[in-house]
Amino acid sequence: MATHDSEFDLIARIRARAATRGDVLLGIGDDAAILRVPTGRDLVVAMDTLNVGVHFPEDTAPADIGWKALAVNLSDLAAMGAEPAWCVLSLSVPCADAAWIDGFLDGFFELAARDGVALVGGDTTRGPLSVCVTAHGLVAPRGGLRRNAARVGDDIWITGTLGDAAAALRQWQTGIAIDAALRARLDRPTPRVAAGRALAGIAHACIDVSDGLLADLGHACRASRVGARVAIDALPASSALRAAFDSNDLRALQTAGGDDYELCFTAPVTARLAIEEAMALCDTPVARIGAITSDSGRVMACDASGAEWTPPRRGYQHFAN
Amino acid sequence: MATHDSEFDLIARIRARAATRGDVLLGIGDDAAILRVPTGRDLVVAMDTLNVGVHFPEDTAPADIGWKALAVNLSDLAAMGAEPAWCVLSLSVPCADAAWIDGFLDGFFELAARDGVALVGGDTTRGPLSVCVTAHGLVAPRGGLRRNAARVGDDIWITGTLGDAAAALRQWQTGIAIDAALRARLDRPTPRVAAGRALAGIAHACIDVSDGLLADLGHACRASRVGARVAIDALPASSALRAAFDSNDLRALQTAGGDDYELCFTAPVTARLAIEEAMALCDTPVARIGAITSDSGRVMACDASGAEWTPPRRGYQHFAN
Repeated sequence: MATHDSEFDLIARIRARAATRGDVLLGIGDDAAILRVPTGRDLVVAMDTLNVGVHFPEDTAPADIGWKALAVNLSDLAAMGAEPAWCVLSLSVPCADAAWIDGFLDGFFELAARDGVALVGGDTTRGPLSVCVTAHGLVAPRGGLRRNAARVGDDIWITGTLGDAAAALRQWQTGIAIDAALRARLDRPTPRVAAGRALAGIAHACIDVSDGLLADLGHACRASRVGARVAIDALPASSALRAAFDSNDLRALQTAGGDDYELCFTAPVTARLAIEEAMALCDTPVARIGAITSDSGRVMACDASGAEWTPPRRGYQHFAN
Repeated sequence: MATHDSEFDLIARIRARAATRGDVLLGIGDDAAILRVPTGRDLVVAMDTLNVGVHFPEDTAPADIGWKALAVNLSDLAAMGAEPAWCVLSLSVPCADAAWIDGFLDGFFELAARDGVALVGGDTTRGPLSVCVTAHGLVAPRGGLRRNAARVGDDIWITGTLGDAAAALRQWQTGIAIDAALRARLDRPTPRVAAGRALAGIAHACIDVSDGLLADLGHACRASRVGARVAIDALPASSALRAAFDSNDLRALQTAGGDDYELCFTAPVTARLAIEEAMALCDTPVARIGAITSDSGRVMACDASGAEWTPPRRGYQHFAN
């Protein structure tokens, strides 16, 4: 039987497990946190919300929800080349079930510890299950990666593999058995924090892939007033994805699936060796998948013959009719 | 008929209306914002969420929801003595109705402009109506007000009047006509930003009253390991509140109602004149309502005869059974 906590017990439960850092002058327990930003560093702020049934399936384990709520925010910091520092958490739950909360915190704090992030505040409210996180990171002045910095002739790169999370979601939606490796990618995306930091100073533009590769690359191209040509056969795929889907489904999942939380970045051709060395140093697989063109705003995926391939849909939009 | 926007149109609609500041190096439109914290200032971070039906009645005007979502966060910054600077907004809405969004932004940006706050990022999601804001402010090193700094013998002070918002909520809940002045206090709380900043360096402990005076004063007392004695007849009440409720209801609303967003602070007796002058300078009514005692953790409300008065309930807790 579930144990129900009051709001204050819930905050005490969270506070008891929150790690701290030397630059946290005042953490959980007051009206706000007080933090010290080191001299000569700029502050990077990202905020993302996960709602049940929209951003994760209803049957997602509480620990995976906790992990993912922080992961999607750290992925945004990674795409800026920032070093994660602090976060705040707003947790809306229908009722305060102690076992559920403990599971949620297991996943949340596991990732927070991995990336040295201190939880310094937030709030808990009653409502439909929803998790909002604001993550704070640090970058050197003018050191942040931006999506609007792609240049014509740049290589386009991607970390990791594409399509796994969307594949798990499709299996879940169609009611077939979900491959465990794919499900792990849906439930526990790994923010590319070390890769993002290593790319600051090497890459031109960078964005994390959450809406789908072509959609997110499109955002970067429009912001940079350039185009992109992607070699569809160069897109990295996991063996689990290749085993479970035919080549047309595979392409659709890789280009438009979303929820990958890999970094898509552009860099000059002269940086190829530096990128491969930097990614090897942080154990991050990386693939070169295309080039930036002058065809402003146009993102093309092409097969080996050079023919354009159009995915069935581009990206996932909330509110799409 | 409602016009429905896609998520990206919605973000464009928000971005078009967001003001900026010189210290915003990168605002809405990338994976994260980049902000410059001035040398010699510490960062203050507050996060609060409003859920429909829990934190505001279903019939609340969108502009009032926008105002209040930011106000409750700026009230937290005010309680720390911080100068507001930036905020991020996560907006979950069941559907993207353009008229609703525009109304919401009217209220949100009206308050943001009043207090010089730049909206620098966030996200929009589909889900039950919920508004989460993270507000960022600045304080001088060791200049922030904390709730754990009350000392035995301190005066206890409160800004403004108490009980109005809770009175409007009670009228709404019981279905009687809602007094417009009281409803305005429920829908458009005024964060005491100037007062909070003026009190930094004068006051000892400070907290904003959101859960109810005695509950919030209790939090400050427990954090400070002191007690409090409040003179129930000294609590400031608006004329609208006095007109609508008898003295027992009045006391209950003033001590336990919540949603006041006034500042409750403690200060040495020697600071009385400085406080009255500082509050007059920022046009903030202030009343002296009691004293800090050595009776650790005990908050007493007393009538003119010195007899203790116990409110029917203490504060509002989400998840309370």
